[in-house]
Amino acid sequence: MNQSPDTWILAAQCPSVIGTVDVVTRFLREEECYITELNSFDDRETQGFFIRAEFRPQREGFDDASFQARFAERAAEFEMNFELTAPGTRMPVVIMVSKADHCLNDLLYRHRIGQLPIDIRAVVSNHPDLESLAQWHNIPYHHFPITADTKAEQEAQVWQVIEETGAELVVLARYMQVLSADMCEKLSGKAINIHHSLLPGFKGAKPYHQAYAKGVKLVGATAHYINTDLDEGPIIAQGVESVDHAHYPEDLVAKGRDIECLTLSRAVGYHVQRRVFMHANRTVVFPN
Amino acid sequence: MNQSPDTWILAAQCPSVIGTVDVVTRFLREEECYITELNSFDDRETQGFFIRAEFRPQREGFDDASFQARFAERAAEFEMNFELTAPGTRMPVVIMVSKADHCLNDLLYRHRIGQLPIDIRAVVSNHPDLESLAQWHNIPYHHFPITADTKAEQEAQVWQVIEETGAELVVLARYMQVLSADMCEKLSGKAINIHHSLLPGFKGAKPYHQAYAKGVKLVGATAHYINTDLDEGPIIAQGVESVDHAHYPEDLVAKGRDIECLTLSRAVGYHVQRRVFMHANRTVVFPN
Amino acid sequence: MNQSPDTWILAAQCPSVIGTVDVVTRFLREEECYITELNSFDDRETQGFFIRAEFRPQREGFDDASFQARFAERAAEFEMNFELTAPGTRMPVVIMVSKADHCLNDLLYRHRIGQLPIDIRAVVSNHPDLESLAQWHNIPYHHFPITADTKAEQEAQVWQVIEETGAELVVLARYMQVLSADMCEKLSGKAINIHHSLLPGFKGAKPYHQAYAKGVKLVGATAHYINTDLDEGPIIAQGVESVDHAHYPEDLVAKGRDIECLTLSRAVGYHVQRRVFMHANRTVVFPN
Amino acid sequence: MNQSPDTWILAAQCPSVIGTVDVVTRFLREEECYITELNSFDDRETQGFFIRAEFRPQREGFDDASFQARFAERAAEFEMNFELTAPGTRMPVVIMVSKADHCLNDLLYRHRIGQLPIDIRAVVSNHPDLESLAQWHNIPYHHFPITADTKAEQEAQVWQVIEETGAELVVLARYMQVLSADMCEKLSGKAINIHHSLLPGFKGAKPYHQAYAKGVKLVGATAHYINTDLDEGPIIAQGVESVDHAHYPEDLVAKGRDIECLTLSRAVGYHVQRRVFMHANRTVVFPN
Repeated sequence: MNQSPDTWILAAQCPSVIGTVDVVTRFLREEECYITELNSFDDRETQGFFIRAEFRPQREGFDDASFQARFAERAAEFEMNFELTAPGTRMPVVIMVSKADHCLNDLLYRHRIGQLPIDIRAVVSNHPDLESLAQWHNIPYHHFPITADTKAEQEAQVWQVIEETGAELVVLARYMQVLSADMCEKLSGKAINIHHSLLPGFKGAKPYHQAYAKGVKLVGATAHYINTDLDEGPIIAQGVESVDHAHYPEDLVAKGRDIECLTLSRAVGYHVQRRVFMHANRTVVFPN
Repeated sequence: MNQSPDTWILAAQCPSVIGTVDVVTRFLREEECYITELNSFDDRETQGFFIRAEFRPQREGFDDASFQARFAERAAEFEMNFELTAPGTRMPVVIMVSKADHCLNDLLYRHRIGQLPIDIRAVVSNHPDLESLAQWHNIPYHHFPITADTKAEQEAQVWQVIEETGAELVVLARYMQVLSADMCEKLSGKAINIHHSLLPGFKGAKPYHQAYAKGVKLVGATAHYINTDLDEGPIIAQGVESVDHAHYPEDLVAKGRDIECLTLSRAVGYHVQRRVFMHANRTVVFPN
Repeated sequence: MNQSPDTWILAAQCPSVIGTVDVVTRFLREEECYITELNSFDDRETQGFFIRAEFRPQREGFDDASFQARFAERAAEFEMNFELTAPGTRMPVVIMVSKADHCLNDLLYRHRIGQLPIDIRAVVSNHPDLESLAQWHNIPYHHFPITADTKAEQEAQVWQVIEETGAELVVLARYMQVLSADMCEKLSGKAINIHHSLLPGFKGAKPYHQAYAKGVKLVGATAHYINTDLDEGPIIAQGVESVDHAHYPEDLVAKGRDIECLTLSRAVGYHVQRRVFMHANRTVVFPN
Repeated sequence: MNQSPDTWILAAQCPSVIGTVDVVTRFLREEECYITELNSFDDRETQGFFIRAEFRPQREGFDDASFQARFAERAAEFEMNFELTAPGTRMPVVIMVSKADHCLNDLLYRHRIGQLPIDIRAVVSNHPDLESLAQWHNIPYHHFPITADTKAEQEAQVWQVIEETGAELVVLARYMQVLSADMCEKLSGKAINIHHSLLPGFKGAKPYHQAYAKGVKLVGATAHYINTDLDEGPIIAQGVESVDHAHYPEDLVAKGRDIECLTLSRAVGYHVQRRVFMHANRTVVFPN
């Protein structure tokens, strides 16, 4: 299910019309590309079309630049946006954290063993606590404290790291600060947050305490793209766990760690493998 | 896990103090009652104590009236409310439905094979559609149409059926009318509703359509006691199912049927086996 | 996710070579067929290719006979077997049962509300017990008793029903007799059994009792095509439920009913929507 | 749910007779101990009784030695074995690994943040690979290579570490060697293994490859006490995950890592909190 060392990914979206699948698959055949995985979805609500193909070029000397140029002509007829991803690509990532380290620890582990095709370029935090964890994994750690007064300045520092590292994805791995609207816009479609509840239930602060007060029998976590509405961005993945009356808020916090890690790493994996498409305020996800 | 044909249930609750378990277990031993299942919970938040024992009298001629009288003395010291349930008790139930029949069908089936220790005395509906289903199971069916103008009158008819059948539990098995505050109060702790979302998410009408619009990746159902706040009563059980972008609202409706049936029948089973305790706006549930 | 009233299904399989997707999608475009759902899988182990498309003809006067004739030419180049299914097709089915009625009840319910596109032509049993259930749903019920001596004769009776009803699928909904090798061969790829364990664990008789003896913490059910090796046919779907030490065999039996129903109906749904492909002793399933 | 800083655990088992609960709860009341969590199970099959209480002494100067001495008298009447665990106890543990590090990484993390009340005294491996991981957590790492010829000698080295560290639990966190019968006996009830299948399915080597070959739709992991029958010891916990035809063996390996970690850490947590009782070849587990 993971991308093989010799497969390319073509991901594309466009308005729904007849022939959207054919324009992709015919081209791949003409280019002597062998399709190993293919997913498409035609959304009758929004008239949007989404397709993702993994393929192996069969012909010697596959040239991606000319492949793209040739496909661009076909795609133009369909107003199709597409992206081609080379074998072995690891997306540059910046991770943002505060004090809780479970999601960071999990992402660093998956990164270390190669389970997630990401290249963690930096860890940024408003606290110094997790520096040694990052260091052991040889990842630069930036401690940028934040106060109400210094928010703009701190975000500028964060943004500088994102730019300098060339990060294409920012993962908010339990970063406990609300980003400014400006930052949210700059990161639109490029930042994934983990919220520790089954959104839209229990938005905002202390969702496990809210869940306890409500007496729910299931708790969960939601990984979503951020946007300017807090905890309202397009959902990528959700996970859930049973609980009962004997779980006090701190028990929910403990129990929730596993779901948060699993849900966030799943969403990051989908994103970096180009399995996620945003449209309107929802996502199309082709899972593996 | 189901009550054995010769076991009694003692369920009790009282304020937390030392000795609350002992007062029950010591008494059972003195009465030569063999405990086959025991659950207790001491809620540090509300200082409430909850206990449930299943037991088999070992002595010939167990007399429940005198058992209750004797235990009442002990219980009084602890301000303990208790309830004793005889082997083989089937709780009298009235089921309320509208047009959707999946939950009714499921409850009738479990009733028929004896999986739920309930005695369905009547099915009440604001529509005539499900009469033949009830009839095949030999359950009286009452069709009480309702309009905005006749709500009070219709509820009076429903209440009469509840009273005449001696129902101790009303199950709202996809009854699509909002009960009046007066009716809710009369049924407090005695009526279980199934709502087709993971409360507190998606309260009110058309929750699957809300879920679709929001783009969630999990849908669910919540069985709860009703109270005067719509979809806000104490939660007994919740169930969940994965969905994706390709599930349109009508697919969620179809997929949700199974979760609704399972969640509702589970909650009803817990209730009639005296496994549920309400306190504040939450429940303590000792599952099997 | 369910087939729309105006969509056709094309399901095909062939050896893996380049162009297998294209031959299907190009043809559909040429025929002005709009693809609404597309799934394909290329099995690198067996070099088998599997594809399923749902599509809506856009051109007036779609003629399936000529469509098939034209596509057959293209398919021949790829040694591709294919099957075209018209909108609204309900597969003729015979259900076989013994005494347990939960799976039958569940299938009849889903049939009645139109959730499963099947046409239940007959229920066959070696016991008379479930006749009234079938009758209420207006399904003919055939009671064919069986003994060791009359097995061949009984199976001949069953076969006659299958033939006379034109059944294309036989569902063994807790039919507690082992079919003869001859019968298994005649029903190869056309009969789905539900076994009440997570195969390959606990084959054969009384799997819940085996599970209890082993002390497992999960029990499950497996829906599979039958073949001449008992409980060894290709698996279509599996379901699972948590249990604990307090679940005696009869509790597992009770708890397992729901999983069996859900797993069997899921497998039947996949099969009749042409979402399942058998190859070697495994299946490819494109779920919805 | 986790043991509070001031609660003691009393865990006991004995043959089933009347009064087994009472002997515990009455004593706790007499000693002015406040029960915060109580679980009991009376096994009708084996006539075994199991009880676990968490309690807070209310009286000043609780003396565990005299508590134990006094309770031992009562327990003797019931042939009851019991164990008292002080608040804040962290069980000394040795972890055995080979080359796969996911379970080790997970246990070290939970140990580091205090989620598991264990004191990891050493990591032992037949390979050198995981030394730096242990070192970063300040845990001694012993590399004891093994060959068919040196097995007895190597196990003697391992045993020496177990003895010298005072380990009360050995966790086989993907240790890929079969322990000798002698070693298994010495570790009876004190060693937990994680096997990467849903036992009893797919015992022995390469279970994910077996699962792939069989075409199952669910894979899982089983944490169990070891005994002299390979992969046959009493099961403590099992976890499961859905898979499909597109998961090749290496995908199952990747997908299985999370289940293995979760299942093993859950089993270890139950064990060290005295929530597990072995009897016959099964376990009684009182989960939290």
